[in-house]
Amino acid sequence: MIQAQPPLRSGERLDDLLTHQLRIIQSKQVFSFSMDAVLLARFCKVPAKGRILDLCSGNGVIPLLLSTRTKARITGVELQEKLWDMARRSVEWNKLQEQIEMVCADVRDYYKTTGYGTFDLVTMNPPYMRPVTGEANVNPHVAAARHELNGGLHELIAACARHLKSGGKASIVHRPGRLADIMEAMRSVRLEPKRIRFVHPRVGEEANMVLVEATRDGKPDIRLLPPVIVYGEDGQYTKELWDIYYGEQSSLTGGENP
Amino acid sequence: MIQAQPPLRSGERLDDLLTHQLRIIQSKQVFSFSMDAVLLARFCKVPAKGRILDLCSGNGVIPLLLSTRTKARITGVELQEKLWDMARRSVEWNKLQEQIEMVCADVRDYYKTTGYGTFDLVTMNPPYMRPVTGEANVNPHVAAARHELNGGLHELIAACARHLKSGGKASIVHRPGRLADIMEAMRSVRLEPKRIRFVHPRVGEEANMVLVEATRDGKPDIRLLPPVIVYGEDGQYTKELWDIYYGEQSSLTGGENP
Repeated sequence: MIQAQPPLRSGERLDDLLTHQLRIIQSKQVFSFSMDAVLLARFCKVPAKGRILDLCSGNGVIPLLLSTRTKARITGVELQEKLWDMARRSVEWNKLQEQIEMVCADVRDYYKTTGYGTFDLVTMNPPYMRPVTGEANVNPHVAAARHELNGGLHELIAACARHLKSGGKASIVHRPGRLADIMEAMRSVRLEPKRIRFVHPRVGEEANMVLVEATRDGKPDIRLLPPVIVYGEDGQYTKELWDIYYGEQSSLTGGENP
Repeated sequence: MIQAQPPLRSGERLDDLLTHQLRIIQSKQVFSFSMDAVLLARFCKVPAKGRILDLCSGNGVIPLLLSTRTKARITGVELQEKLWDMARRSVEWNKLQEQIEMVCADVRDYYKTTGYGTFDLVTMNPPYMRPVTGEANVNPHVAAARHELNGGLHELIAACARHLKSGGKASIVHRPGRLADIMEAMRSVRLEPKRIRFVHPRVGEEANMVLVEATRDGKPDIRLLPPVIVYGEDGQYTKELWDIYYGEQSSLTGGENP
């Protein structure tokens, strides 16, 4: 049976998410998801049921990928209307409207809709860079995705905390350069970092990505998981990376806490 | 020429530090240095001259190893008299009295002797474990080396900060489980974490050691260096580890900050 033509707008394309026949609408002019989001979707521990919230959801890649790991209801929040609209249509294209809801809202205000402490897991792949005064990216969509134009790290982590039940988990991906900022912000809102994993482009190189999972009201203690190495000596993705892309994510979560 | 008999006391032995013909007095009943101290001595960036302070110095392994990397004056501070005495005699045995001074004092009070802000680098391999109420180690020397009986992490990090000039560096080794505590304590005393390296026993295993270097009054930004792997698949130390033991430490410092 030939599937209907996807509802693409100008400049958009339909990409393969390489797992569970999932597709996603992308656009070079607006936003394409990065490996960071994929690694976060595989790193976080998902509840079997309950409710998951993805903040700074972009074109919805994390909700789409999480849908393969759980039956929990997933809400994605994205401030930019163009991105939200892409995400919403991707959810429809994958016939996941029953499980995933995309909301166009400011993540700092969204608790006014839901109330405090209603989610079991909050994921977030936020803009990495501090706001710039000089040469901000000229494309406003790309600028907002990369720079903290709509909330600094502290505000965004506070937004994660507000939505979590006690014992719920916040999983975020960021740059290692901000590690101390992340820890400080988390602790200030009763998110205790529990599981950390660094991503290095190649063996012997510094990390350029960090995955951090914190527990709301958790007991202080951190497990520092084995590093993820992205490229092998042959310049190709390592087997581990492909396993992650294909959804063999067991190695990435690092197993249960002892 | 036969060297004079070392001044060993009951239960002590003279071990080889495997670099620059250095020897160190050790004792199973009191204290033997661990790999942690060796890695810290190789990880920290040493000033070519100036003054270095080693807190919680134990039997003086870090001052001894640092002497091979710098002409700076080094002071080691150790509270336990037995350990201090071992360290002092090791310094003499190695004829390093001109460069290294061992002091028997509480690291929390030592600034009263030196004043604030007089050192360029402070190193510290502190006790890793929180004080226990239950089964503390029955050997009081070993207990004090392992448990925070004479100052918690926050107090010890504050002691590092007190001794540093603005721009000076604090380098410590600890357990990854305490990473958030370390960051929080450092920032509370104007020590900004700048360089971090995790040590994993084997490929694919969680880290069991973390090396952190902070700059007094530094600008927030962290370099996350490549992991150190201790054992190879053959169960032996990796080449990298041997390079560190033998003093080929260039790979461990991770080069200069850009």
